[in-house]
Amino acid sequence: MTTRLILMGFGTVGQGLADIIVEREALLKERGFDAKVVAIVDSKGAMISEDGTGINLKEALRKKRLEGSVAEERASPIEVLEQVDCDIVVDMTPTNIDTGEPGLSIMYRAFEMKRHVVTSNKGPLAIDFSGLSNAARDAGVLLRYEATVGGGMHLLSFIRDSLSSCKVFYIEGVLNGTCNYILSRMEETEYPYEEVLEEAKGLGIAEADPTYDVSGLDAACKLTIIANVVFGRNVTYSDVMTTGITEITPEALLLAADGGYAIKMIGVAKDTSLKVAPMLVPRDSPLNVHGTLNVASIHTDVAKTITLMGRGAGASETASSVLSDIIAIHNVISH
Amino acid sequence: MTTRLILMGFGTVGQGLADIIVEREALLKERGFDAKVVAIVDSKGAMISEDGTGINLKEALRKKRLEGSVAEERASPIEVLEQVDCDIVVDMTPTNIDTGEPGLSIMYRAFEMKRHVVTSNKGPLAIDFSGLSNAARDAGVLLRYEATVGGGMHLLSFIRDSLSSCKVFYIEGVLNGTCNYILSRMEETEYPYEEVLEEAKGLGIAEADPTYDVSGLDAACKLTIIANVVFGRNVTYSDVMTTGITEITPEALLLAADGGYAIKMIGVAKDTSLKVAPMLVPRDSPLNVHGTLNVASIHTDVAKTITLMGRGAGASETASSVLSDIIAIHNVISH
Repeated sequence: MTTRLILMGFGTVGQGLADIIVEREALLKERGFDAKVVAIVDSKGAMISEDGTGINLKEALRKKRLEGSVAEERASPIEVLEQVDCDIVVDMTPTNIDTGEPGLSIMYRAFEMKRHVVTSNKGPLAIDFSGLSNAARDAGVLLRYEATVGGGMHLLSFIRDSLSSCKVFYIEGVLNGTCNYILSRMEETEYPYEEVLEEAKGLGIAEADPTYDVSGLDAACKLTIIANVVFGRNVTYSDVMTTGITEITPEALLLAADGGYAIKMIGVAKDTSLKVAPMLVPRDSPLNVHGTLNVASIHTDVAKTITLMGRGAGASETASSVLSDIIAIHNVISH
Repeated sequence: MTTRLILMGFGTVGQGLADIIVEREALLKERGFDAKVVAIVDSKGAMISEDGTGINLKEALRKKRLEGSVAEERASPIEVLEQVDCDIVVDMTPTNIDTGEPGLSIMYRAFEMKRHVVTSNKGPLAIDFSGLSNAARDAGVLLRYEATVGGGMHLLSFIRDSLSSCKVFYIEGVLNGTCNYILSRMEETEYPYEEVLEEAKGLGIAEADPTYDVSGLDAACKLTIIANVVFGRNVTYSDVMTTGITEITPEALLLAADGGYAIKMIGVAKDTSLKVAPMLVPRDSPLNVHGTLNVASIHTDVAKTITLMGRGAGASETASSVLSDIIAIHNVISH
């Protein structure tokens, strides 16, 4: 059975996903993955495969890169959802942690229509995780969101599938590559925060408005999703005690180094508390990763501590998580 | 549906598994896991649940610890397999990498009888991986072996399930905790190999005859299994270029340290070559783990490099992998 996908959002992650599907077509076929994209929606409108044979992704990518949009007609995500039959809605719309939109409405409408959902959008999950989970469950469909936590780390499926025999005590880690880059560079160069931030902006590692990352909000959103999944909590990002990195000085990093420590922006998810803040980490700890890397240590009963390190961001890394989720749902519905 | 298990072998791993099932009963039930053990076989004979209601694992553990065996009757693994109806055969018999026995015969007979198999025994897989895989496939049953590679690292299911969207280029890592402990301690103390080996024996980290570990054979067996799974190879452990750690001197470790390196026993599995040997690793590399830890870096196309660190051995760690495999098969057959 061919699984039909609608791609909502065709920015960095959406194009990264299309790139992988195009480049790895033979490999994916070999692994039994059989899917086609029946519609792509971006901010300007939609490209729809009218005869249902599937969109030529190479052409869609070319059009997007040349014209800035795939739009062949004006249509909103919800309109396309109601008009085009599909199996999985892939939400890769931009994150808005105040309203969760447009992802939130897309996902609820998808569940009403009994569509499975894969999302890379943290916003809806960070403010309404249990509402969305319940809606998916009530509709009898699947909701997966690997890419929302640590881009290419594949942390959530590792805990769910591989550690099914373990009770997780707590999870701690570096969940934001921008903060980690800034702290790593400050330690390395002894330059002040503002200067390193400018460098990070120049490299595309920090956004023009870096608030969402450096304030700890991004890490708090990820921690919220982890806590809801792993501990069955019902929390939103405002339940996370969050401190940013803007007050960290090169002097503080030097002092920490003298004592054998690094200062890292650490998120800790326990059964009863959630915290994101700059913390001291022993220099030989696996949490002391450099550059934009992400890392998470999962402390369990029977397997003890397992640490996972990987790229927390990047188009192909994040798209790899989205595609793993699509493949997992494809495997369930095609058997 | 209650999944019926036969435990073949009731040593460290078998008892570790029984311990987890007893201690985590409520948690496992909550996760939908419903299984009973209908027979346990150790080297002296078998304990069989004659009425099929399942063995009381607490009593079996007590009997084993008091009397050295659970045997209530003389019966071989194969006899029990032919006599007792079950869904999954859990092979936790001792590793023999020359003959693969008794695991090899147990697994083949299990497949003939259409039983699923979970094994923690490297021997059969390191010498006859493709024969066993084909026999399982032809019988239409599942064969899983998470515990054979890196005990509690859960590496294989991570690659299979979480990284389903990625092409793996190569995998490198520290796959033997005994070697890693010895090299870490030699570096730390500057004591010679023989002295540190004696210490490791005293701590139970090295066996009385440590050859299997220090020669690199154990790591080679794990690498063989990784190569067969990840690259679809058809290799045995004799296809691995293997060099042990017995010739490493404290002087070599010091020299490496001066240059910013550690010497680690590294296994590298590529599409076309398999190698286990002491290698230089940059000190800040994630492969530079200490003590008995295991680590594997998975180099992929789209998710780039992901590193997994965990306990490579230990009763509860290894049993956690066995149980994850049992749960995975339970989930497939009970849906």
